[in-house]
Amino acid sequence: MSNPLPLGACIGILGGGQLGRMLAVAASRLGLKTHIFEPGANPPAGHVAHQVTTASYEDDAALRRFAQSVDVITYEFENIPTSALDILEQIRPIHPGRRALAISQDRLSEKEFLTGLGLKVAPYANVTTAAEAEAAAQSIGTPSILKTRRMGYDGKGQIRLKDASDMAEAWQAMQGAPSVLEGFINFSHEVSVIAARASDGQVACYDLGENVHREGILHSTTVPASLSAAQRMDAVLLAGQILNALDYVGVMGVELFVTADGLIVNEIAPRVHNSGHWTQNGCDICQFEQHIRAVAGWPLGDGSRHSDIRMENLIGADMDRVPELRKTNAALHLYGKSEVKPGRKMGHVNFRT
Amino acid sequence: MSNPLPLGACIGILGGGQLGRMLAVAASRLGLKTHIFEPGANPPAGHVAHQVTTASYEDDAALRRFAQSVDVITYEFENIPTSALDILEQIRPIHPGRRALAISQDRLSEKEFLTGLGLKVAPYANVTTAAEAEAAAQSIGTPSILKTRRMGYDGKGQIRLKDASDMAEAWQAMQGAPSVLEGFINFSHEVSVIAARASDGQVACYDLGENVHREGILHSTTVPASLSAAQRMDAVLLAGQILNALDYVGVMGVELFVTADGLIVNEIAPRVHNSGHWTQNGCDICQFEQHIRAVAGWPLGDGSRHSDIRMENLIGADMDRVPELRKTNAALHLYGKSEVKPGRKMGHVNFRT
Repeated sequence: MSNPLPLGACIGILGGGQLGRMLAVAASRLGLKTHIFEPGANPPAGHVAHQVTTASYEDDAALRRFAQSVDVITYEFENIPTSALDILEQIRPIHPGRRALAISQDRLSEKEFLTGLGLKVAPYANVTTAAEAEAAAQSIGTPSILKTRRMGYDGKGQIRLKDASDMAEAWQAMQGAPSVLEGFINFSHEVSVIAARASDGQVACYDLGENVHREGILHSTTVPASLSAAQRMDAVLLAGQILNALDYVGVMGVELFVTADGLIVNEIAPRVHNSGHWTQNGCDICQFEQHIRAVAGWPLGDGSRHSDIRMENLIGADMDRVPELRKTNAALHLYGKSEVKPGRKMGHVNFRT
Repeated sequence: MSNPLPLGACIGILGGGQLGRMLAVAASRLGLKTHIFEPGANPPAGHVAHQVTTASYEDDAALRRFAQSVDVITYEFENIPTSALDILEQIRPIHPGRRALAISQDRLSEKEFLTGLGLKVAPYANVTTAAEAEAAAQSIGTPSILKTRRMGYDGKGQIRLKDASDMAEAWQAMQGAPSVLEGFINFSHEVSVIAARASDGQVACYDLGENVHREGILHSTTVPASLSAAQRMDAVLLAGQILNALDYVGVMGVELFVTADGLIVNEIAPRVHNSGHWTQNGCDICQFEQHIRAVAGWPLGDGSRHSDIRMENLIGADMDRVPELRKTNAALHLYGKSEVKPGRKMGHVNFRT
């Protein structure tokens, strides 16, 4: 294990949204400081961080100053420009590492990495030309879903195909962005593993959560998930396999489809994950603290679950529910975003069940 | 109930120590901002607050600017100069209110208030002159303890008398500070109630914790405490009586001696309390969030206990235990203080038991 960061050390966090905010709070609990790098003004994470840099990812001087002011760098989102990472990495270590980032920034690389490990993913085809688009529509069939290889999240950059004849229009809408056509999977439900790996290779997984999406955005996660003992074991083993293959340091979210033929990996995210927010009220050590511990070179904490939880996201106008929710037994977690927008994650709530 | 503060509102906190730090984190969870007022540089609460004012309590202009920048004012310690409160109160509401502060700032007023409610306290005598000191030593007897009426905490400003002949020297050491001589109580153990009252009069108490002190400083709190059902009920009722008598808004710590003749009130603190730190890992809504909810005019949250906890303070050189503690299942809470000093509270740790 690398030397653990001493108390008072500073963790640089790329991205100032709600994940950065909750990471900053977790770091404070461990006596560590945080410095947020975020292009947008008044970032939610800035309210609870020791320092904030407001600058673009193209501002090399700001990136250098940021890196020099911290002891280690992590991030709350995976779509960080490569040029920025190149600068930062010369000055301070970045955890999780570049390979995990590169893989998760590109759906094709991710699928190739996962299948290379012998794990199952949905049928897919690479689409970079109109001809490949048509061929993919034939080989993968329909229903299927065309996704940009890069920069997609929360259902953005995705088009569903009901029939092979939808492909021409869908590919045109992608405006030439390299894409992947994914076949639909006949799955009963989606679960996710929130897994952590320390710098000495120690791995710990939280209990699996069962996810429900609405309009392509996570709506709720319920723990424990409906799974057999064998499925739970499979999930933990495959998460460990992914983390070890990447020599990963930090928390990763692994989304899995549960099918009659076993678990199929939907997506991996090299960061704390919305489907792990239940850990804040279900465990002593939540995913945010676990990530900070790993990134700081500390041993992982005890992520065992003491309570059953149902997490629900508060998205856009769901914030109108807050006055009623605060009268209930629910644990509220609000992100301090000043403006409510449709589809915007504003907070979440953990119900003890 | 007064109108609840809207999301994004700012709570001003007097004092930038660990209690202010944990209050700021709790406020962030509720989508509220915090502004810390603290004379000392680099306050622990400043690392996680939206804004920090570094100024003295004698700086009237700074106090006014602070008050104008926030929506409501609370505090993490009770010894706030009256002159500062006078300025602040003209600009923004202060919760808990002035009466609770005035009473808890003066041991004599506190004892008179409590006995006025019909509650039991240790035998006491007012000491303002050498003659009163000698008379008190005779009437209260020994062993007993001479305490300054104002500004005492963590065992400071206290002198134990083994024999009545110790009084002359003890009184001289007080340098004329108005004091109280307290008789010793034959108690089996000390417990505390962490109680909360909302602005609409709703009262909620956490389960009682059992406290162990070392050298006059809280060492550990264990929940549940060893108490009969009747004692638990007495404790809750007396806490409710105190809160209601003061039309209190916020969290209060009430320390109680458990004796064969019932519960005796040792001390009240009009703020979140060290003996309530266990709630961070024993309850969904911890004392810090409960205090913020009350001060913000929100309904209280669910403070029911889901787990048994033993809280231990990390004082001074106890910080040397951190490398070992972080390998265990304990939940660490460190305060980010840069300098370790003997007797200084540096953090605490919650063990699930």
